[in-house]
Amino acid sequence: MRTITIKPQALTHNLNQVKKRAPTAKILAMVKANAYGHGVKAVLPALQQADGIGVATLIEALEARDLGWNKMIGLIEGVFNQAEWQQAIDNDLSCVIHHYPQLEWALDNVPAIANQARQVWLKYNTGMNRLGFNEQTILDAAQRLHDAGYRMILTTHFANADDVDHPLNTIQKQRFADMLARLRDTVSQDVQGSLCNSAGLVNFPDSHYDWVRPGIMLYGSSPIKNTSANELNLQPAMDFSAQIMALQTIKVGDAIGYGSHWIAQQETRTALVSIGYGDGYPRILDKNAYVSVIDESSKQSYPCPVRGRVAMDMIVIDISSTPTTLALNSKVILWGSVPHVDEVANHAGTIGYELLCRLSTRPVRTQTSSLE
Amino acid sequence: MRTITIKPQALTHNLNQVKKRAPTAKILAMVKANAYGHGVKAVLPALQQADGIGVATLIEALEARDLGWNKMIGLIEGVFNQAEWQQAIDNDLSCVIHHYPQLEWALDNVPAIANQARQVWLKYNTGMNRLGFNEQTILDAAQRLHDAGYRMILTTHFANADDVDHPLNTIQKQRFADMLARLRDTVSQDVQGSLCNSAGLVNFPDSHYDWVRPGIMLYGSSPIKNTSANELNLQPAMDFSAQIMALQTIKVGDAIGYGSHWIAQQETRTALVSIGYGDGYPRILDKNAYVSVIDESSKQSYPCPVRGRVAMDMIVIDISSTPTTLALNSKVILWGSVPHVDEVANHAGTIGYELLCRLSTRPVRTQTSSLE
Repeated sequence: MRTITIKPQALTHNLNQVKKRAPTAKILAMVKANAYGHGVKAVLPALQQADGIGVATLIEALEARDLGWNKMIGLIEGVFNQAEWQQAIDNDLSCVIHHYPQLEWALDNVPAIANQARQVWLKYNTGMNRLGFNEQTILDAAQRLHDAGYRMILTTHFANADDVDHPLNTIQKQRFADMLARLRDTVSQDVQGSLCNSAGLVNFPDSHYDWVRPGIMLYGSSPIKNTSANELNLQPAMDFSAQIMALQTIKVGDAIGYGSHWIAQQETRTALVSIGYGDGYPRILDKNAYVSVIDESSKQSYPCPVRGRVAMDMIVIDISSTPTTLALNSKVILWGSVPHVDEVANHAGTIGYELLCRLSTRPVRTQTSSLE
Repeated sequence: MRTITIKPQALTHNLNQVKKRAPTAKILAMVKANAYGHGVKAVLPALQQADGIGVATLIEALEARDLGWNKMIGLIEGVFNQAEWQQAIDNDLSCVIHHYPQLEWALDNVPAIANQARQVWLKYNTGMNRLGFNEQTILDAAQRLHDAGYRMILTTHFANADDVDHPLNTIQKQRFADMLARLRDTVSQDVQGSLCNSAGLVNFPDSHYDWVRPGIMLYGSSPIKNTSANELNLQPAMDFSAQIMALQTIKVGDAIGYGSHWIAQQETRTALVSIGYGDGYPRILDKNAYVSVIDESSKQSYPCPVRGRVAMDMIVIDISSTPTTLALNSKVILWGSVPHVDEVANHAGTIGYELLCRLSTRPVRTQTSSLE
């Protein structure tokens, strides 16, 4: 069975790592993109100790409310029109305001009570050059929001927080600190600040301010270039597995799979695994990509290289390293503890975030009990 | 709104193209992997004229039965254990038998009535070297199935049908033809044959046999290397779109997005689009990747290059070519008619199949009425 298993205990462990690193900040746990592919429903119970959650779309926000999340929901792209702004008020969502149209919707329609929707995340562009007001416009925006009765969290986003030495980090931190000080001086002492995503909160402990916004580290992947999740004491929250569906021996000279690119240089024991890009396993992999095969009789795990092209519904692996008694239907780990999703992503020329998000609906979803 | 729109008329048009090319063969329409990401429920009504559908897992088969598909369902990887074999019988599924364990389950438990489950797809490995019996074992398997009362479709799978001149094609075709003749001579005159996927049925009209198994061409992508879907008179069955969520002007020297790799050489009008790899848009793209922006006032479409890294929830595009009056919330086509998904895949270093399959659950799904 193609299976995605979520581990609530790992999520809670990772959230506690955030708390350890940022003990004075509130935590907005990012659960956008269906909790980075893990499933919002599966992760929310394990993230109860977060102070709020962050989502990208109104639909995601309403789903979280439906699931009973009563604390803050931050809508990180804000709303797209006046009607959505009303829905944000009705569902007490705390919206990002990143440009003038959103500002006007907010000023035209101020929530009647001082709830979460009266607290907005005012986005400042410090160098990412995606969303946000600039140095010339943000003071005006902040003043008008304050005058209309809004509380504010000044927020920005790092472009290179994963690379601690990148020169833009210092510039972004300085711009943010300067603007927060100006807003507190000229608009309101109560303006809060939020600068750090996962990478920022690990790399820049001096910049946690009022809210940190961890995402990928909650799911047990490393947000930092050249540093593993293990080194950061993070545990993968997902186990992605399948099964061996056939065992074969390939003769010298035989090619495997589409394109016939991989050709056996020696007689090779191979196995077919019931997984493919139709499940979300990446199609493009370098020659060092591998999976772990579990031999049930010995409970041993064996690394097995992927051979030939990944197809929609199956892959071929080299099982030379496994016992010759390896059984049909043996469990195959695509990612989990070993290999870690960050490692698979490295072989796929991308980052773990993408692999997690681009899982399809085909694998069966389950979770470990809280005791495991 | 992030939206996936399915076009039933395009599906039916493409199915008719299959019928034109293979007028004498029955059609097993491949709807595995959630109909290549299109959604089984959305595509089945448009594929009513197919003779059967093909799926990869028992879950997919049961879903199609639940949706009311009463004709043949081919289970292309067969079953994984004895219990699944019983379920296949109970739901009248026509299974692939590709190795001895499946053969034994079939012989141990023969369907009582001569329904679809009594017709099996006997898989012959002619050079793909994934699934299948070999030249030494398949006669034995066929004889035993025949003796137990099964009807058979001999089947195999091309490794390089997309590349008409690949030398393995001729070898696979010959091996298949030889074995089918032998089985008909020695086992039963009633053994049927099925060799061609989409690429095979286009490239090898002499090899259609009793059943063709089109997949990707039903969805309007080209199965053939260096030949476009348009040249094959195929229509894309999916329109994947989002909206412009912010408009900006980037100054000379400003970098965009994560990694700060793309730096403006001149003042540039850009737009933020509410789409990212969290929706299934590929993260890795070459510098020629583009989207189409629709200007509502003129109904004109403008190609706009993607700038900077694709993030989880948004991308930045260069809108220099569009009117300066371009409105917020303008529609942005990620793939559809222009660009075609095959073109996007080309910029992503992969094939359209993968992009279609790896869409996430976040985009809203809809479909055009049958009149459009």
